[in-house]
Amino acid sequence: MANSVVGLPIAVDAMGGDKAPSEVVSGALQAAKELDIHVLLIGDPGLADEVSARPNVTFQAASQVVGMDEDPGRAVRSKRDSSLVRCAEAVSEGRASAMVSAGNTGAAMASALLRMGRLPGVTRPAIATVIPVPGSTPTVLIDSGANVECTASMLVQFAQMGSALATERFGIVDPRVGVLSIGEEASKGNALVKEAHALLDGGAAGPDVRFIGNVEGRDVMTERVDVIVTDGFTGNVVLKTLEGGVKAVVGGVMAALTGSDEVKEAAKVMMGALLPLATELDPDTHGGAVLLGVNGVCVISHGSSNAKAIVNAIKVAQHAVSDNLVDRIQVVIASGRGGPGVGT
Amino acid sequence: MANSVVGLPIAVDAMGGDKAPSEVVSGALQAAKELDIHVLLIGDPGLADEVSARPNVTFQAASQVVGMDEDPGRAVRSKRDSSLVRCAEAVSEGRASAMVSAGNTGAAMASALLRMGRLPGVTRPAIATVIPVPGSTPTVLIDSGANVECTASMLVQFAQMGSALATERFGIVDPRVGVLSIGEEASKGNALVKEAHALLDGGAAGPDVRFIGNVEGRDVMTERVDVIVTDGFTGNVVLKTLEGGVKAVVGGVMAALTGSDEVKEAAKVMMGALLPLATELDPDTHGGAVLLGVNGVCVISHGSSNAKAIVNAIKVAQHAVSDNLVDRIQVVIASGRGGPGVGT
Repeated sequence: MANSVVGLPIAVDAMGGDKAPSEVVSGALQAAKELDIHVLLIGDPGLADEVSARPNVTFQAASQVVGMDEDPGRAVRSKRDSSLVRCAEAVSEGRASAMVSAGNTGAAMASALLRMGRLPGVTRPAIATVIPVPGSTPTVLIDSGANVECTASMLVQFAQMGSALATERFGIVDPRVGVLSIGEEASKGNALVKEAHALLDGGAAGPDVRFIGNVEGRDVMTERVDVIVTDGFTGNVVLKTLEGGVKAVVGGVMAALTGSDEVKEAAKVMMGALLPLATELDPDTHGGAVLLGVNGVCVISHGSSNAKAIVNAIKVAQHAVSDNLVDRIQVVIASGRGGPGVGT
Repeated sequence: MANSVVGLPIAVDAMGGDKAPSEVVSGALQAAKELDIHVLLIGDPGLADEVSARPNVTFQAASQVVGMDEDPGRAVRSKRDSSLVRCAEAVSEGRASAMVSAGNTGAAMASALLRMGRLPGVTRPAIATVIPVPGSTPTVLIDSGANVECTASMLVQFAQMGSALATERFGIVDPRVGVLSIGEEASKGNALVKEAHALLDGGAAGPDVRFIGNVEGRDVMTERVDVIVTDGFTGNVVLKTLEGGVKAVVGGVMAALTGSDEVKEAAKVMMGALLPLATELDPDTHGGAVLLGVNGVCVISHGSSNAKAIVNAIKVAQHAVSDNLVDRIQVVIASGRGGPGVGT
């Protein structure tokens, strides 16, 4: 990926997600109009009339759709004219600078891997998710679901790629990287965590990664750490546990708000004060997980994405392109001990 | 454990926890007075004067204390006259019906294992933690930290023991048991989860366990499932992630409450409506994790337990004794396929 791609459009999978195509198209048109970002919208031929005349929008027809529950590998191999595969292809053929999809996560990964390929030296691409921290910069959680079984040297690469993202996206200088475990001491954790701790502590991630040791689940939403590395199984469990926990608390607060008239009146006043918090924790605002380690920018938005979430995901993609995230990752991977080939 | 132990006192480790001995002693005295529960308080000889004359309280001096950060195995072997080891001993010698400690979790487990021993057929004891669910019965999470590395047949036993606890403690008839994974389909998850799913689906836990399949992190604080089984690493990460997430949201709400005068006024009214929720999510109310699979009742309270949390932990212990939790666990373990010896 070179600087020349900055001027290219961002490919958007019009058919991906629970609210596709209507909300996705609406978000893409909004980004094109309000953010002046050139969008390559790929989807059902029937959408052509609605979107073709819009400024900053190019339309490409794709005859197939990958369903949310389809087997990723099979879907990507058999549906070569799906909107998802065509998005990845547009990036690999140099017609788009990045891709955005709210569709089947596994299939989005498989498409990106198949069409863009891995960056040199990367053992396995990983999904980095951004967790909001009230009153502070967010925490990057990597891997949050791409690789169910991991080796310690894969976790070292996640540390490198997560660091690059924290710096590029949030401007965090020298981000603090921790390994997710069940105690701060190096002796705590399972075999994978102990080995990853030893490698990172020994500088295996290279001079650009600032390893601060083990962190715990309770640190995820605090200012203690900027990048948390973990295997994709644990990372996905953490992500969904947080989603559920926050929803339960917010639901409880909301239930309290529907009490007596007096409470309702108080609630109206309170809401003004609570709104900044709600925005901060809103998945639509912070959504847009990124697949790191492939040779291009691939942003995977939440399956329930609405137009606002799509606009945000497009912003995230644009940012990654203009800041050369992929180049940065290549540099940090190459500077690690072993470089290409490590961790196999 | 037979019914005869119901009349025995509950052994309380006066020296365990960040707020010991003052808050622990205060909680123990409160339980003895208000709940009419006989307490055997074990701790520093200097406490004798303060507690000896109280009704329902027996005091036993112990010259040693296990520190919160000591190596569990070493501490338990070398400190035979510690309050913690003496508590476990009181149960094994038939002088107490149960033990309660807010001290070093690993050392509490090691003491219980050393003095009480495992129940016949149990491969590994596990910690069951209770997660509050707003507006519903809580969810039992097992294992939440005792066994960092697990086998699939250990997870089958966790399902059996967790079911027994959900029925005994919360009166849940035929509790729904799920395996924690990253998707509902049997094909989702790591090798351990897939194997455990196959065993449970095949009825390995016996006729008393109602297996509903995989559940996800987002189900922990919902009504979807009553017992969630997982390895101790993942369970501990889930528990601490929830703690941190809930704290972050509540902290955000609190910060909003300290806004303008108008907001403060509204907050006062709101607080009355929010209080029932706060109580429900309060770790002091729901605390009291239980070590299941040992031949006796062992309740491990949060390290930061105050008097209220200790009273609650003593109540939990009393309940387990009067409902014959240990006997129930023995029955359900024996009814599983393989019974004693499985899962080694």
